[in-house]
Amino acid sequence: MKTLKSLEALTTPLLEIQRINSAAALLSWDQETYMPAGGGEARAEQISTLQGIAHQKLISPDIEKLLVNWVDLETGELRDNPGDTWDEPARSLLREVWRDFSRAKKLPSDFVVRLSRECSLAQQVWAEAKDNHAFSQFLPNLRTVLSLKQQEAEYLGYRESPYNALLDVYEPGSTIAALRPLFVQIKGRLVPLLKKIQQSPVKIDDTMLFHTFDQARQLEFGRLVLIAMGYDFERGRLDLSAHPFTTSFHPTDVRVTTRVHEHDLQSCLFSCIHEGGHGLYDQGLDPRYFGTPLGDSVSLGFHESQSRMWENCVGRSRAFWRFFYPMLQATFHHQLRGLDGEQFYAAINRVKPSLIRVEADELTYNLHIMLRFEIEQDLIEGRTRAEDLPGIWNRKMEEYLGIVPSNDAEGVLQDVHWSLGAFGYFPTYTLGNLYSVQFYEQAKLEIPHLEDEIAAGQLMVLQRWLGQKIHRWGRMFTPDHLTRRVTGKSLDPEPFLSYVEKKYGEIYKL
Amino acid sequence: MKTLKSLEALTTPLLEIQRINSAAALLSWDQETYMPAGGGEARAEQISTLQGIAHQKLISPDIEKLLVNWVDLETGELRDNPGDTWDEPARSLLREVWRDFSRAKKLPSDFVVRLSRECSLAQQVWAEAKDNHAFSQFLPNLRTVLSLKQQEAEYLGYRESPYNALLDVYEPGSTIAALRPLFVQIKGRLVPLLKKIQQSPVKIDDTMLFHTFDQARQLEFGRLVLIAMGYDFERGRLDLSAHPFTTSFHPTDVRVTTRVHEHDLQSCLFSCIHEGGHGLYDQGLDPRYFGTPLGDSVSLGFHESQSRMWENCVGRSRAFWRFFYPMLQATFHHQLRGLDGEQFYAAINRVKPSLIRVEADELTYNLHIMLRFEIEQDLIEGRTRAEDLPGIWNRKMEEYLGIVPSNDAEGVLQDVHWSLGAFGYFPTYTLGNLYSVQFYEQAKLEIPHLEDEIAAGQLMVLQRWLGQKIHRWGRMFTPDHLTRRVTGKSLDPEPFLSYVEKKYGEIYKL
Repeated sequence: MKTLKSLEALTTPLLEIQRINSAAALLSWDQETYMPAGGGEARAEQISTLQGIAHQKLISPDIEKLLVNWVDLETGELRDNPGDTWDEPARSLLREVWRDFSRAKKLPSDFVVRLSRECSLAQQVWAEAKDNHAFSQFLPNLRTVLSLKQQEAEYLGYRESPYNALLDVYEPGSTIAALRPLFVQIKGRLVPLLKKIQQSPVKIDDTMLFHTFDQARQLEFGRLVLIAMGYDFERGRLDLSAHPFTTSFHPTDVRVTTRVHEHDLQSCLFSCIHEGGHGLYDQGLDPRYFGTPLGDSVSLGFHESQSRMWENCVGRSRAFWRFFYPMLQATFHHQLRGLDGEQFYAAINRVKPSLIRVEADELTYNLHIMLRFEIEQDLIEGRTRAEDLPGIWNRKMEEYLGIVPSNDAEGVLQDVHWSLGAFGYFPTYTLGNLYSVQFYEQAKLEIPHLEDEIAAGQLMVLQRWLGQKIHRWGRMFTPDHLTRRVTGKSLDPEPFLSYVEKKYGEIYKL
Repeated sequence: MKTLKSLEALTTPLLEIQRINSAAALLSWDQETYMPAGGGEARAEQISTLQGIAHQKLISPDIEKLLVNWVDLETGELRDNPGDTWDEPARSLLREVWRDFSRAKKLPSDFVVRLSRECSLAQQVWAEAKDNHAFSQFLPNLRTVLSLKQQEAEYLGYRESPYNALLDVYEPGSTIAALRPLFVQIKGRLVPLLKKIQQSPVKIDDTMLFHTFDQARQLEFGRLVLIAMGYDFERGRLDLSAHPFTTSFHPTDVRVTTRVHEHDLQSCLFSCIHEGGHGLYDQGLDPRYFGTPLGDSVSLGFHESQSRMWENCVGRSRAFWRFFYPMLQATFHHQLRGLDGEQFYAAINRVKPSLIRVEADELTYNLHIMLRFEIEQDLIEGRTRAEDLPGIWNRKMEEYLGIVPSNDAEGVLQDVHWSLGAFGYFPTYTLGNLYSVQFYEQAKLEIPHLEDEIAAGQLMVLQRWLGQKIHRWGRMFTPDHLTRRVTGKSLDPEPFLSYVEKKYGEIYKL
């Protein structure tokens, strides 16, 4: 039986490549947290230089020569060499390295460098344009990035739509054909539910969330929740950035960020919990596999399932606040005086169509994603021109959510993704929502009295279960295979839909 | 006439190498400022990976092939090709690229990677050993680094002593033979001066510096002084680290750090001014030359001349405090109430042999360096064994300064340098002290009423002069050539010696 040991000639250069990627990730983290304003241009060059080197090393003839010994480079099938029987990690490693290699091999290195540089610059222009509420300022960069991504799809090759080539990067195996029925099904259940909620006599008062809350205390509370979740500060940090994110350089150095709004208690709190969910995944990857695909997360949908499970299934649950509300009340006794946990629970679960995706409730969130999913397909397929985006955005907002942004900062400019070239990323958020409930229901079946444990502040029982079932496996299994291992079946939107119908049915007395 | 334009085939890959080095420098900065404790091992690997890549790229056959067209690789002489007349930047660039290339070419890439990794690890062990006051804990790593540095000297080749090979890295052209007489001369004048000061009836009371000072306010004051010096926060940052340092990734991103001691007003204040001096040099390098040696500082001695000039010639001068003392008093009115600027000036210039180099006064500072200069020669030449260091250190402290550390943390473990493999670095501090006064005297000759300007808070007149005379030139000239351009003569210890004799003669009424 051949094991990973037999593949050392392959894993050694992969480890070097991963270290270069980790360095590039630190450069990006710094760009979002501490870099002085003037350093942006030089930083874009540094990052694209490292990404170009990593790309060149991955597609080097040395790696190709090794890989071709064991894998048919056309199909990815393992060769049937006499005497070669591989154990599961080795087989998985070869499958996933082939996936990365064959994708990278289709892209010229100078294209990779150019794409990286243009995205880094576009991100900076986007941030300014957003500050200025000026889409037109961002338009030239968006055009450049869009045409590079169309070019990328052509390099990669695809069936049916170039958008499928981009989707597959973030969610292996995902296609428009698979996603569209999911969205139809979700929409079919969520839109009527939303209508019923809007017609419900129950009106939730959430003004308690919008008093003035000391920023340092908010941050301290977020930190405390992270610790309770099992996020290890010996191997992590919490910093501030305009947009909360999680990044990892190694399982021993996984960093999360948050933001704090003085007049909105939810922003810091839920972004800490959300990013903490991502952070636990990355801290829970097996360090022995670092540098190989087995030390990497299986897909973005899976990653998002972790953050959304912690944010919503846990962080917006009664059980969680049974434990944490008294502590929150002690922290902000002035603002929360006389308000009980039940009122707080209702306030943080108020359903209301709103303009900003990251602030959306659990229900309307997926409508925000659907809008983006449709728009980015049209962009990549060339049916929509970049300059028409603000109008299209606003019309779809009106149609799906019944509200219209008053400016582009709260409309088409709100998300960083397109500036980074991350077309095909958004659907993974909805996949994450669906996965999150499917996994959480399984956790409730397998962990005795899970919600009692949560209500006693014992969040780490869930963290340990996720570590065992999901985190430690990295890319050992495909997303679908891992879903079946964890829950006994493939992705299924039903648990999510039943969960929201039950939860909001109860809150809104439907 | 051929210009830099004709050398683009050479400067393009150099720019890529510099970007890799900048990325490695950010990784080091992060290690000292924000990296979580658990991330150290992975970080060491990331840095050594990048340094290995940068090294391999520098000694690549492509660069060698280009360079050999124009330079005799044995001697560094420009070839006398027909039609090749180079302008000064191009000539300087070829001279300095040859210097970097031929040095790098002598070192095997796996040696560079190993040295980098061992130093990164040794630094972390050193920090723990220092915390524990336990030299023995650091000894195995020190032995490893020491033997690698001896190996490096052998690879590089040298005349007379392997230590010369290491010295030359930090201070091009510097040798034991040139340094030793300098130290003898300095010692011959400083030791008698120190004796006279110790016998003087003037006793300076500096207790005002050791009250309790709010840390945030100290930092705010340090920041204010940096702004007055012309340090540009749009292209820089001030952070905290255990040991203050300056690092640069590009002239648009130059970062300084400081430390704050609640019971010592000098530590944050003077490290801000000191690092600010370094920072101005790096911010003042010509960005058009970035990536070439012409965009790099000329030597560590020169770099230190900038920090020491700002720290001592300016920051410990009457003129400076005429402007800043009222502001300091306003910041710490409680602690400084009733104490005038003259008392403060005396306090910050109190001469007193002390254990810690970075806290030493201007006079005894060079004795700390002399001790290190002697010890590290003996280590590199193999006359002293690493395990004997604490005893040797303490005996020399007794001999030169009349005091003995009570533990290794305030003795042989106090400096990070040897853990980083920076043998041959210490003498540049004394060179910096000597250069600093030589340059400052020249500035006083050339800038009308310089000290009046300083007393009016107009520190930027000095920053601009230094920018014109030194910073912008990078490595266009050799250190000796640049010294002569600025002051009309080569390095001369006399200005420094006269300055301290006059200054301290007056303070101590000798």
